[in-house]
Amino acid sequence: MIAKERVKFPVRVGLLGCGTVGGGVLRLLEENREYLASRVGAPLEVTRVLVRDDEKDRVPECRREWLTTRADDVLSADLDVLIEVMGGEEPARSLVARALDAGKSVVTANKLLVARHGTELVARAVANGADLAFEASVGGGIPILRTLREAFTSDWVVSVHGILNGTCNYILTRMRDEGLAFDDALAEAQRLGYAEAEPSLDVDGHDAAQKLVVTSMLAFGASVDVASVPVEGIRSIDRLDFEFAARFGYTIKHLAIGRDLGDRIVLRVHPALVPKTSVLANIDGVLNGVKVVGRALGPCLLVGRGAGDMPTAVSVVADVVDVARSKIGGEPGLATRGIQVKERPLVPLAEVHARYYLRFDVEDRPGVVGAIATELGRAGVSIEQMVQDGRAKDSDSAVPVLLVTHETDERALRGALVAIGAQGFLRGQARLLRIEAV
Amino acid sequence: MIAKERVKFPVRVGLLGCGTVGGGVLRLLEENREYLASRVGAPLEVTRVLVRDDEKDRVPECRREWLTTRADDVLSADLDVLIEVMGGEEPARSLVARALDAGKSVVTANKLLVARHGTELVARAVANGADLAFEASVGGGIPILRTLREAFTSDWVVSVHGILNGTCNYILTRMRDEGLAFDDALAEAQRLGYAEAEPSLDVDGHDAAQKLVVTSMLAFGASVDVASVPVEGIRSIDRLDFEFAARFGYTIKHLAIGRDLGDRIVLRVHPALVPKTSVLANIDGVLNGVKVVGRALGPCLLVGRGAGDMPTAVSVVADVVDVARSKIGGEPGLATRGIQVKERPLVPLAEVHARYYLRFDVEDRPGVVGAIATELGRAGVSIEQMVQDGRAKDSDSAVPVLLVTHETDERALRGALVAIGAQGFLRGQARLLRIEAV
Repeated sequence: MIAKERVKFPVRVGLLGCGTVGGGVLRLLEENREYLASRVGAPLEVTRVLVRDDEKDRVPECRREWLTTRADDVLSADLDVLIEVMGGEEPARSLVARALDAGKSVVTANKLLVARHGTELVARAVANGADLAFEASVGGGIPILRTLREAFTSDWVVSVHGILNGTCNYILTRMRDEGLAFDDALAEAQRLGYAEAEPSLDVDGHDAAQKLVVTSMLAFGASVDVASVPVEGIRSIDRLDFEFAARFGYTIKHLAIGRDLGDRIVLRVHPALVPKTSVLANIDGVLNGVKVVGRALGPCLLVGRGAGDMPTAVSVVADVVDVARSKIGGEPGLATRGIQVKERPLVPLAEVHARYYLRFDVEDRPGVVGAIATELGRAGVSIEQMVQDGRAKDSDSAVPVLLVTHETDERALRGALVAIGAQGFLRGQARLLRIEAV
Repeated sequence: MIAKERVKFPVRVGLLGCGTVGGGVLRLLEENREYLASRVGAPLEVTRVLVRDDEKDRVPECRREWLTTRADDVLSADLDVLIEVMGGEEPARSLVARALDAGKSVVTANKLLVARHGTELVARAVANGADLAFEASVGGGIPILRTLREAFTSDWVVSVHGILNGTCNYILTRMRDEGLAFDDALAEAQRLGYAEAEPSLDVDGHDAAQKLVVTSMLAFGASVDVASVPVEGIRSIDRLDFEFAARFGYTIKHLAIGRDLGDRIVLRVHPALVPKTSVLANIDGVLNGVKVVGRALGPCLLVGRGAGDMPTAVSVVADVVDVARSKIGGEPGLATRGIQVKERPLVPLAEVHARYYLRFDVEDRPGVVGAIATELGRAGVSIEQMVQDGRAKDSDSAVPVLLVTHETDERALRGALVAIGAQGFLRGQARLLRIEAV
């Protein structure tokens, strides 16, 4: 092996955005200056920082002379690494693309950007001998992408089950533990700053779907259009579902699921029943968790804070060290080198095989349970457990009928639900939740 | 930044040992040949493999011409990376030291070696511009050392709580779930291959202590003599302790604990009560798990198979990719660069502050509970809960008195236990278990 002259010039770092995550990054770079330099092999030196308002107060680690409101000032500066923590699709995408085209390595925390444009941006990085790292875009401080890229280097990822949205997990935890209704749990999460005023990105599952698509790039080498991933949120879950799930030994978690079937992959995002004693079932509150199963490695679970300024900043800085180190080594592209994506077809939801929890709120009259069982049987769905308890208080109120099925096709089951609905004894829609044996 | 000529020569790899882990490594190197080459930047090529018996059947990936029974054949070969999977202290230590002295990078799965000689071997690696990587020595397939080294680069590790011994965890899980006695659970673990015929390394806590010392090198930059770590095993736990722990909302896990107090560090290995709803409490069977708390990152938990040939082999190969890549980059030493250890004083067990679970098996006569409470009060130990239920069946049998204390000094508590023991009403020894709020 040829030894080479070590380059000791500083690695110059620019920032796009200096909100709470950006401020955290500047703080960590300052606090750990010497240690980071020893890890990288050269000091990290901030040069320019793009902000919207250069008069606003910033963290003390942010020097006023770095600030600019013109993106060109950052991009035309003599930079080695660009950190994108401004969020959103544009102008983040164009600026990151310009930096990569100029051979600058980029670290981003932007899940929307990577979910929508990751494949293109990785290709751009590779073409220009630059790096693109985005650990902070999934699971905040949890080193999930790093683990997939490095620890699983010689393994094959069979499946991924993730609790990737802290807002959903907080709401479901409060519903389970305190018997809160969805709306009350959401209001509480909003009060505590765990949910946005406009919560649909989180509670309807889109945030988790973006993170799943990013994760799938590394787990399955898959380039997937996020719009093609089946997504269900948690608005329709009510506290009774938790009671009933508990009766069968389960709790309810909002999961992002990926599975490699060889020819195709499964990606889906929805609430699911998971066994109460499983580790995923016990990841509560705003924590995130990802269970990865490798062919050789078996199960590997990572849990931590999925959001928050400092956890996210720690992940950003870890990426900065990686890409800076590979620049110093004269071999940029080590972060992207592990990413070899291609388009991979998705298995449609209708073809999913799973066990199901079903809840029918029905009129309290003879023959209803038999009718449900008959329709399910006709569709080839076999029933593992069925419970109807309590009688209606009066002729107007409904009683719940609960079912757990054996493994079955979702298409067949959906057909049976339509037939059951047509019989007129349902009050409201049948509730269907998949059961995941994680 | 200076670009440099990429070296495309193969990275030559030698193995010391070719048992089940070594065979797994050869299999993974072969199965993932192309992908690994793309990750490293050059192909990995096995040259020599040291075995005790060169006639024995090996995995098909192991070519007969690689085999030798003479260590010199491996060490004098033109090697870049040496993989040590022979285990034990000698000759592993001398051979690894020789390789490092010759500037060869080493990957080892040997926890005994790293726990006893890690500091010296890291120094040797650094002095010779070589790498030393040992992910597989702790937690099998769990990327705990990699996570500490890379994800926590800009953070400060506050504490580590690990379930690091799969044998202990299996035995305790079976005692809890099936009410087995320790001896029966151990016998079952031995039958299933989860415990050795001579189980003391595992069940007396020494294996976990070695792994804790290795983990502390990266978590706390600590060089610690493994013999100085307070260690307790699980032989004295009985099924009644599980019942009583459950009554207070806890279960019992065997933990390896580290904590950075700034001037000193806490390292200790012992069974402990952990809240039933905590994630660590639900890591069952042979699984291992480590919870790391970072100042900025907050909690981060990693769970997976702590042993087994293939998980261990996956970790070895991930390390090989790292050290090979840093060789190719002309900058060997990236794995060791993050390890900056010094001797750090340990906090003695007597100075530990904790909450405690106490169990006294006592004669069933008036005044006993009062005497216990009085002695504890005299020592300044305050009682959170106290339970005595049931009466002795006859005058010879004992009744248990259970206590949970508020936070207290272990020294004061131990003093009180001596005083209580002196009063003559105890049957057997008082049982003391620390409560960890993980």
